[in-house]
Amino acid sequence: MMNSGRQTIKFQKEAVITANYGIAGPKEKEGALSDYFDYILEDDTFGEKSYEKAECKMHLHTIEKAIERANISESDIDAMLCGDLLNQIISSSFSARELDIPYLGIYTACSTFGAALALGSMLISGGFMSKVACSTSSHFSTAERQYRYPLELGTQMTPTAQWTVTGSGCSILADSGEGPKITQVTIGKVIDYGIIDANNMGAAMAPAAASTIIAHFKESGRNPDYYDMILTGDLGIFGSELVNKLVESEGISIASRHEDCGRMIYRPEQKVRMGGSGAGCSSLVFNTYIMSKFRKGELKKLLFVPTGALLSRESSLQGESIPSIAHAIAVEV
Amino acid sequence: MMNSGRQTIKFQKEAVITANYGIAGPKEKEGALSDYFDYILEDDTFGEKSYEKAECKMHLHTIEKAIERANISESDIDAMLCGDLLNQIISSSFSARELDIPYLGIYTACSTFGAALALGSMLISGGFMSKVACSTSSHFSTAERQYRYPLELGTQMTPTAQWTVTGSGCSILADSGEGPKITQVTIGKVIDYGIIDANNMGAAMAPAAASTIIAHFKESGRNPDYYDMILTGDLGIFGSELVNKLVESEGISIASRHEDCGRMIYRPEQKVRMGGSGAGCSSLVFNTYIMSKFRKGELKKLLFVPTGALLSRESSLQGESIPSIAHAIAVEV
Repeated sequence: MMNSGRQTIKFQKEAVITANYGIAGPKEKEGALSDYFDYILEDDTFGEKSYEKAECKMHLHTIEKAIERANISESDIDAMLCGDLLNQIISSSFSARELDIPYLGIYTACSTFGAALALGSMLISGGFMSKVACSTSSHFSTAERQYRYPLELGTQMTPTAQWTVTGSGCSILADSGEGPKITQVTIGKVIDYGIIDANNMGAAMAPAAASTIIAHFKESGRNPDYYDMILTGDLGIFGSELVNKLVESEGISIASRHEDCGRMIYRPEQKVRMGGSGAGCSSLVFNTYIMSKFRKGELKKLLFVPTGALLSRESSLQGESIPSIAHAIAVEV
Repeated sequence: MMNSGRQTIKFQKEAVITANYGIAGPKEKEGALSDYFDYILEDDTFGEKSYEKAECKMHLHTIEKAIERANISESDIDAMLCGDLLNQIISSSFSARELDIPYLGIYTACSTFGAALALGSMLISGGFMSKVACSTSSHFSTAERQYRYPLELGTQMTPTAQWTVTGSGCSILADSGEGPKITQVTIGKVIDYGIIDANNMGAAMAPAAASTIIAHFKESGRNPDYYDMILTGDLGIFGSELVNKLVESEGISIASRHEDCGRMIYRPEQKVRMGGSGAGCSSLVFNTYIMSKFRKGELKKLLFVPTGALLSRESSLQGESIPSIAHAIAVEV
């Protein structure tokens, strides 16, 4: 139960991922993983009057359905650990308003789902809680108008840009039950290589992903070939190339088993440039496609590394570069 | 170490608060607790080109000084749990960028310091970490222009409004050492009584504070007279009256030992209406004035209840009411 390194915690008592649910938007329906999503919005307003309200509804619906999947009720959940990209993470707190569950809001941008799993697995392993819900969401239209430009402008994407995933995912962690377990977590440090282009998140986040992956292998004593897959969050095509090179420079080769949620969620013909991004990207892919691979026995050992760019509109406008972070979660059967 | 109720966790192994630091702004210097602050900004830009950069610098400085006070170095800290009111909590993540410490961002508005202490004490009690830094900040000028109006407008405060504290506080929690201990935590649920006036946060937050305080007393088996003081975060004058009445309606009387950080930080002649608010309000007061009372032996048992209003500018503009939350932390020698 003690640190096996400064950033890495190896659990003696391991939290079990007992249930999952993931909701996607219409653009994601046209993507490569469509068959795996539990529910798909036909219309990205989800019947609401604003995109922000739609994201809140999607986030809430995801948590409620994951609880249902776990065959438990709201009152069985000891805490919800949630986050999203909206200012003041309102998708999360407005979801919590509808639920009778103690709430802790988490924010490390698109790596938030990793932070939630890391904290959730510690709260369970420590014996403080027996069931925890971890969830995140993002929505193309809320992110675009909050971080970039009004949607009405129809602004073109730059070559290195990524498309924010409309999606939400939730995992139920428990102290017992059936499912893959969280065996180790490596908590990330904030890394900033001085990238200032908010349309090149892959480049901003790759050094943070590399830092966490390197720390994980140094501290865990494991090698990349221990895992069937090393799955980063939303580095996209360019960021994925970068992370492989950065990790390689430390003598660790992950290329043969590296995948990226942002790179796999869409199809090339969808014109999403470098791929998907957003706090909902990795949580949607993890809670649907990846967990189905675990259930089918096609995946047994995964290092899941959600990645996040910690900028805000104000920080970019004030000329700041983009600090980034990644957390690594070892999931095993 | 197990739940002694759904929201309340009673620790067998208790985290120790080994060091504290608090920085305040010029308006707080004129307030009632000025003598206790560790450092006071003469100018609320702190020599920076923007208020946002000033808040980041203040937050970072507070963490660095708290680490110094604990007679340890950055590399001794296993994680920093931080949050603030800026969009995407950039004061926290930009502080983390400057420090070689694993980072977890937390957000439950002005109750964030309570969430950080709750999580930090669980991570230490569970044996996962030996030292954790918990910090929050707020800044009048960043909050005012982000949540309300441009500063240049010189907008008048409404009668029920509160003044956002320019301040930052940090606690170092450890698995051993000298200092008061965190013995129990009660994690809040999100409560919304339908208040839509963003200038009446006290009314919005009082039901959440009452909910957590009632849960704490029901689950802990303690009575209000167990504590020397029950200290809410930033309910202000009106919210403090409300919370007393709401708790009283459940047959629990806290009025004789209830204090509120927002109500005590300024002087009436400072024209701050209902008092102070902000994520830095309760953390500044706790880490300076309150901890000095512990050190002098004037305080032995405290129930600290930071309170938060989970709105955003967008949620208010879209007609949403204000969901709120409070977390309770029992601190004892």
